[in-house]
Amino acid sequence: MRARDLAVPFPTITVDAPVLEAARLLAGYNLPGLIVVDSAGCPVTVLPGTQVLRLVIPGYCREDPTLARMIDEPSADVFLRGADGKTVADLLPRERPEPPVVEPQATVLEVAAVMAQKRSPLVAVAARGGPMLGGITLDALLDRMLTA
Amino acid sequence: MRARDLAVPFPTITVDAPVLEAARLLAGYNLPGLIVVDSAGCPVTVLPGTQVLRLVIPGYCREDPTLARMIDEPSADVFLRGADGKTVADLLPRERPEPPVVEPQATVLEVAAVMAQKRSPLVAVAARGGPMLGGITLDALLDRMLTA
Repeated sequence: MRARDLAVPFPTITVDAPVLEAARLLAGYNLPGLIVVDSAGCPVTVLPGTQVLRLVIPGYCREDPTLARMIDEPSADVFLRGADGKTVADLLPRERPEPPVVEPQATVLEVAAVMAQKRSPLVAVAARGGPMLGGITLDALLDRMLTA
Repeated sequence: MRARDLAVPFPTITVDAPVLEAARLLAGYNLPGLIVVDSAGCPVTVLPGTQVLRLVIPGYCREDPTLARMIDEPSADVFLRGADGKTVADLLPRERPEPPVVEPQATVLEVAAVMAQKRSPLVAVAARGGPMLGGITLDALLDRMLTA
């Protein structure tokens, strides 16, 4: 059992896609994150789902979330305003650690090790420098580990 | 719209529960994490799903996951052996930062700020020192933010 056998087709997004598209993809498919690919379809990084929220949050309550309690306006407005004109590139950290990508011949244990080390519930499967073959979620991995 | 209105009943686990039970709960309900509660039902911390994998991984490949490629035995065996006799307490980091818990009167924006700051796709809702009222997932929050 190798990563190529576990990988399933997975929605991807490019760095120049609007933030709103990323949010809709996450919400619509109930995904733990999004695989960000370049124009050649090669995985660049994995965007954790929680990071699409970063732009929503006004600076003054980023350090102290309880300050957000003062704002009780319709949340869709806040989100849409925060996301307006922004792209996925704006969500990515400046320093990018090695992304959670495994090669097709990675074993199940290697996939587990990458997920645990990167704290990423989603890994992309791709040959070095090659296009993404698919994704593996923590849920799919656990199902495999508990029933195989 | 406050946290108490968004919170839904959510599976919890105690620190003395077996690791295998945590893994089965995560996999069975497709959860992004588990809310760990004390004997009074008060939230202690949120265990990210990826951290149930920590015990599976032999020490020698924790730093370098590619070393795991040498092991291609049935992954269920590795997992069950790694989890044997271990409890949720063994999965928790020694230093516990403030857990992602919000008060019932928190606004949607405050919930978003906590998720982004803690990088946790799951927050527990509880009054200070009180039992857990429910949980809010990133998915539920995004659904609310994109459609409200």
